[in-house]
Amino acid sequence: MIDLAKRVYDHNFRIDPIVRSLLDTDFYKLLMAQMIFRRHRDVRVSFGIQNRTRSVRVADEIDLGELRAQLDHARTIRLSRGESTWLRGNTFYGKRQILSSEFMAWFETFRLPEYELEVRDGQVALTFHGPWVETTLWEVPALAILNELRSRAVLRGMGKFELQVLYARAMTRVWEKIERLKRLPDLSIADFGTRRRHGFLWQDWCVQAMSEGLGERAFLGTSNCLIAMRREVEAVGTNAHELPMVYAALAGDDDDALAQAPYAVLADWQQDYAGNLLVALPDTYGTTGFLANAPDWLTAWTGIRIDSKEPIAGGEEALAFWESRGCDPRDKLAIFSDGLDIDDIEAIHAHFHGRMRIGYGWGTRLTNDFRGLVPEGRLDPISVVCKVTEAEGRPTVKISDNPSKAQGPAAEVERYKRVFGVGEQAALPVAV
Amino acid sequence: MIDLAKRVYDHNFRIDPIVRSLLDTDFYKLLMAQMIFRRHRDVRVSFGIQNRTRSVRVADEIDLGELRAQLDHARTIRLSRGESTWLRGNTFYGKRQILSSEFMAWFETFRLPEYELEVRDGQVALTFHGPWVETTLWEVPALAILNELRSRAVLRGMGKFELQVLYARAMTRVWEKIERLKRLPDLSIADFGTRRRHGFLWQDWCVQAMSEGLGERAFLGTSNCLIAMRREVEAVGTNAHELPMVYAALAGDDDDALAQAPYAVLADWQQDYAGNLLVALPDTYGTTGFLANAPDWLTAWTGIRIDSKEPIAGGEEALAFWESRGCDPRDKLAIFSDGLDIDDIEAIHAHFHGRMRIGYGWGTRLTNDFRGLVPEGRLDPISVVCKVTEAEGRPTVKISDNPSKAQGPAAEVERYKRVFGVGEQAALPVAV
Repeated sequence: MIDLAKRVYDHNFRIDPIVRSLLDTDFYKLLMAQMIFRRHRDVRVSFGIQNRTRSVRVADEIDLGELRAQLDHARTIRLSRGESTWLRGNTFYGKRQILSSEFMAWFETFRLPEYELEVRDGQVALTFHGPWVETTLWEVPALAILNELRSRAVLRGMGKFELQVLYARAMTRVWEKIERLKRLPDLSIADFGTRRRHGFLWQDWCVQAMSEGLGERAFLGTSNCLIAMRREVEAVGTNAHELPMVYAALAGDDDDALAQAPYAVLADWQQDYAGNLLVALPDTYGTTGFLANAPDWLTAWTGIRIDSKEPIAGGEEALAFWESRGCDPRDKLAIFSDGLDIDDIEAIHAHFHGRMRIGYGWGTRLTNDFRGLVPEGRLDPISVVCKVTEAEGRPTVKISDNPSKAQGPAAEVERYKRVFGVGEQAALPVAV
Repeated sequence: MIDLAKRVYDHNFRIDPIVRSLLDTDFYKLLMAQMIFRRHRDVRVSFGIQNRTRSVRVADEIDLGELRAQLDHARTIRLSRGESTWLRGNTFYGKRQILSSEFMAWFETFRLPEYELEVRDGQVALTFHGPWVETTLWEVPALAILNELRSRAVLRGMGKFELQVLYARAMTRVWEKIERLKRLPDLSIADFGTRRRHGFLWQDWCVQAMSEGLGERAFLGTSNCLIAMRREVEAVGTNAHELPMVYAALAGDDDDALAQAPYAVLADWQQDYAGNLLVALPDTYGTTGFLANAPDWLTAWTGIRIDSKEPIAGGEEALAFWESRGCDPRDKLAIFSDGLDIDDIEAIHAHFHGRMRIGYGWGTRLTNDFRGLVPEGRLDPISVVCKVTEAEGRPTVKISDNPSKAQGPAAEVERYKRVFGVGEQAALPVAV
């Protein structure tokens, strides 16, 4: 009773691919790609992998030949007809045809562009140069590949039952978190854990467990398009730091244009999207200055995502902003998404429930919490990111509310801090 | 990539059978059956189910129609050609052809005999009347069916992921026990958990986990013949209380014959079996008297199984017996098998390691430890047994070292106590 067909099919792969579909990416990459496709098709940028957990020497843990094979395999993938049909025909955030025919026609012929790979000081230096709309789509698969290769390197040496018990423990851990989540009133939470997941199948399991455990009311869906399609849950997500970072770099030496860049992003965004997609990410160059100088039309937006400030302080700042602009915060949505674990979610909920609408984007601590389950923390997730580093030959800069997440050449960082009025900042540890 | 053939095959079952093979039984039932076949083919006995955990009303928990369907299905099973080949060709306890051609020829045509089923006071009264060699083979499948039906009744109401997490927790629990066992020097342990297992697949998982976790040196094998065959581990087990109980009943009113009955069993046994199969079970009518009156040839036997006395006291008694008869206990084997859990095993090992050879027969706490994993302990195992109650019209009696396990009509119990010189006994709780 062996499934011969499946076995033979699997044998056809040269490798066991980590990424098997262009939809195995976060939904917001597609929303951003469409905006870039419409307005900045010729802008050339560079993306690069950065491991902020320097103590982990990724290049020593994984096989570079395998990494190349996985990246090369990802470059062979095209959107399948069924995937295209789903993107064109599905309702996202309550709306049909959110991705235009023009964008879809382009995406249907898309393949991931070339990559450059070298090793520096034990770290994998993986970079992507080319049109923004193409290179941006490497971020999620590149990170997913790197993280799953790390997991596989550890799992390879384990026995069958040792493995099963490892997953048994991880499942129990996730389920215990879900049981605690069930107790939170008016919970609204989504999976944001694609990029730093333990592995694809594991993320798929976590999404289904959240779906069964929390139900449709509390579990909004997943950022992962492929899992959203297969499991018939919502695909969720809005936008990321790369938009203001590239817009800011494109402002060149013009300080006024630089100061306006984050708002220019949102002005473009609201031409393309509406409703719950109007969630601003205010922290790229400091939340406080961003909100202080925000145009009044931003108050019409649905919400704010709090991604690098200590969450209670960040939430209070959002509340104060809405109140200062005459809005009732109970009509507004704060989405928390910065390295959350269940304790954080409970604390945030206890603090803010009833005062504003709250949503959670739950990432690495949902889809990759194997901490302590193998010796020496070899399955602990690392804080690895894939960030835009240059746009049209100019370095990009990120200030963030947490200087541990800052990025860019020192002189440019100083200039940005001056332009955006960023004062002293306290560094918070970045776990994931 | 669905395994269509498997699905279609499964659909052919009217029910999802709990027992699918006559080998899904304990090895010692076959050894005893062969001895009965050779010497007592015409003896007629009755076996009956007794639930010693009276607080659990089994008949209220399970569907009697389902119970009938499962028992009826078990009656349709015959030994398959491959199973027969394995029994005939395999090495058991280092010896080929331990089961004779005559016995095998009989077993190849064997089907489980009729049963009688009624409900009394919330308990399932399941009885088997007929030739001893046939009815004895109902014990293990009947108990396995009853216990697995209890489990299924609870599992039926659970969600897919809730179920997966239930098993994840149970797996983690078993594995943590295995990790503790790994630390015991010169460990020698076997699975004795067929009859009160949570379910067949679960026992199969536990055996494989033990095999991987402990390796061949420490994990001797399983009492379950089907799992031993499929997983290529040793089938283990020796003999049980039913032998002296029937021999004693057949002694009739003759007190001298009654007093000799337990030794007559062993005299017959050693004509059929040798080596590590020469393990005496001394507690049927009290261990102390049994050892005091034991013939000298018993000291040539490999060991003693300690099954109802508090294990440290029971082990010390075995040690003292061997020493009093001039044997070096380090050449002798004590097998502990009474409701053991990991704490007991560790305590016994700490106390006796180095003083004699030790083996463990680990049953219910290996294959059915779901305590506390669902509300109200509905997956907690119960102490249900299937015992011989009559032989040739006379009631059988068991005294045991633990009066909680005693059985028989009061007058006969008194007579047996007098004949075997059993004094005051302290009752120990019987968990499983």
